[in-house]
Amino acid sequence: MIYLDNSATTNPKPLSVISCASLALKNFSYNSGRGGYKQSVNTSEKIYAVREKASALLGYDAQNIIFTQNCTTALNMAVKGLVKNGDHILISNLEHNAVSRPVDTLAKRGIITYNIFEYDYDEDVLIHNIISQIKPNTKLIVCTHASNVFGCAFPIKRIAEIAQKNGICFVVDAAQGAGVLEMNYADAGVDICCVAGHKGLYGPMATGIMAMRDGLKLDTIIEGGTGSSSLNLEQPDFNPDRFEAGSLNNSGIIGLGAGIDFVSRKGIKNIHKHEIGIVAYIYDCLKKNPNAVLYTPSPTSFKSAPIISFNYKDYSSEKTANLLAARGIATRAGLHCAPLAHKAFGTEKRGTVRISPSVFTTQNDCEIFLNTLKKL
Amino acid sequence: MIYLDNSATTNPKPLSVISCASLALKNFSYNSGRGGYKQSVNTSEKIYAVREKASALLGYDAQNIIFTQNCTTALNMAVKGLVKNGDHILISNLEHNAVSRPVDTLAKRGIITYNIFEYDYDEDVLIHNIISQIKPNTKLIVCTHASNVFGCAFPIKRIAEIAQKNGICFVVDAAQGAGVLEMNYADAGVDICCVAGHKGLYGPMATGIMAMRDGLKLDTIIEGGTGSSSLNLEQPDFNPDRFEAGSLNNSGIIGLGAGIDFVSRKGIKNIHKHEIGIVAYIYDCLKKNPNAVLYTPSPTSFKSAPIISFNYKDYSSEKTANLLAARGIATRAGLHCAPLAHKAFGTEKRGTVRISPSVFTTQNDCEIFLNTLKKL
Repeated sequence: MIYLDNSATTNPKPLSVISCASLALKNFSYNSGRGGYKQSVNTSEKIYAVREKASALLGYDAQNIIFTQNCTTALNMAVKGLVKNGDHILISNLEHNAVSRPVDTLAKRGIITYNIFEYDYDEDVLIHNIISQIKPNTKLIVCTHASNVFGCAFPIKRIAEIAQKNGICFVVDAAQGAGVLEMNYADAGVDICCVAGHKGLYGPMATGIMAMRDGLKLDTIIEGGTGSSSLNLEQPDFNPDRFEAGSLNNSGIIGLGAGIDFVSRKGIKNIHKHEIGIVAYIYDCLKKNPNAVLYTPSPTSFKSAPIISFNYKDYSSEKTANLLAARGIATRAGLHCAPLAHKAFGTEKRGTVRISPSVFTTQNDCEIFLNTLKKL
Repeated sequence: MIYLDNSATTNPKPLSVISCASLALKNFSYNSGRGGYKQSVNTSEKIYAVREKASALLGYDAQNIIFTQNCTTALNMAVKGLVKNGDHILISNLEHNAVSRPVDTLAKRGIITYNIFEYDYDEDVLIHNIISQIKPNTKLIVCTHASNVFGCAFPIKRIAEIAQKNGICFVVDAAQGAGVLEMNYADAGVDICCVAGHKGLYGPMATGIMAMRDGLKLDTIIEGGTGSSSLNLEQPDFNPDRFEAGSLNNSGIIGLGAGIDFVSRKGIKNIHKHEIGIVAYIYDCLKKNPNAVLYTPSPTSFKSAPIISFNYKDYSSEKTANLLAARGIATRAGLHCAPLAHKAFGTEKRGTVRISPSVFTTQNDCEIFLNTLKKL
């Protein structure tokens, strides 16, 4: 199979990831931070080492690296932890449902109000679009680092500056950013960065991270046993315990450590160069194919994650993806859980076929994909 | 090492669990329910097969088997999903912080009020303790199937009858029940049963289940992409999608399937007989040891999960556990994230040393533990 759905989850995983995660199933299936016996302590140390790796990658203190089941859970914890009754939230028009659904739910419950600002290829226009919607009660801006459908990346540092200047918290959905777009999120001024461990960081599935700057106070959405302050029915007020109730995904987290090592060894700049090269090549070939419909400029001409969307002939996106799938090529059709982004690009009815390579995608994969497409 | 901390997480995991979970890291790291390509569809089928296994075990429809990161998350989803402003909750005095902390948090936020009913070895007294605290606005009873500290099991079926009779929802924390105490929770009348997949079901860590009866309407605490109804910013209203936003733990879930198979092959009655035999033997020996302090009757004399708590000489529970750990025996000291239970048994200052065997614990393990303890 030619796998071009790496924005969903990268595949294959590096051998080091599979082997670390597999070994952890055997050697580190112990409750970390609870037992006093060697195996439990060793497990805690192994997990702490991954916090340190994530800390080095994202820029936040190791104890502020919170492990979650997925980026969605991290985003829910961040958004719902930060806002209070009457607050106003700003989100972009390219958000994934992992952002738009929790925000919309809060609004429907009468807790917050929110507005949607428009992405623009021109950064100054984009920034203006944000500033013009800030209200006195705007408490939070939530923005994806890059669209999971069209690749468009947001100027995170500039948005962070606006947020800071206006006393607004800034949460970034880095699901399509971490490991692909080089950025020290903490240095960029992002208050909370939510990450999917199983995408650009090549970790096993069920590994998410909520990484937060020091001193930020959040309400919890999940409370429970932490092995700390156990006599107290209040959730501990220190990290990571406050946000890590119940048992962790030891095997996944330890595998994620190997994934971060893999990414660090390759270098995010090199990974981005390789993957943007892949999508730019595909883009250019599709551009010459009269049957292909494209929706963005070339991914080399603007800040973009290595993701492109297209449609073919008058086929529905599902038809194209199914025809490709039947010929051994995995892409993703439909709305990609991002209805706002499709509305922004006018593709909400048809959806798109999405192409997202990984560091393992080769030039040969591209040729097979392009040749197969031509014959559909 | 002699591992007697199986209430935290069972260890070792059966080889079939490790091998299925490991293989899944390689073969089923695809987004289930999203892609139309064969690997994604195969992954969905594999995961659905585990829903069916859990369905057969717990008694709920397969689509109402919701996979979560852990039992704690399942309990938070159940409790917070069911109650509204002004509701009253009843919980037992043996609850784990996975129940008491979310309930107490809801109370501190002014959303609900709650009372704590007392466990009693006499079921009629226990049932009276519950009935006497029911109020007109009691919406929910939450109760552990068995104490994670002292083993004491609750008469789930009788409590379910009371709940039904009074129009009250009933949520069971089956962290220490599933796989150890034979019960079809749906048939018993439990509205929502929350399970830890990595304890008595021998699955990998980061596998929890919220299993619910059909027709129950719950608010969500986490929303996000589900690969379904994507154009709608409201979370889907059908299961399991409503409660499974974001990527799942494919490897863990598939490993859990092997764990459920393992338990089914062994038979829960046989597992319970073996493990209760182990703790009863240890209990009887400790009873004859003048240095051991015990807190319950013999686990064969009342309905109990295979868990006992003790202390030794005038040592703190941590000292005893650390001395044992230094000699290769893993137990768990302290409060076991269950302060209410320790208050109930008067052990909140000292904590206890907890012994919890698994199906792999042998008579020889008991002898080594008992001989080692004698020399402390």
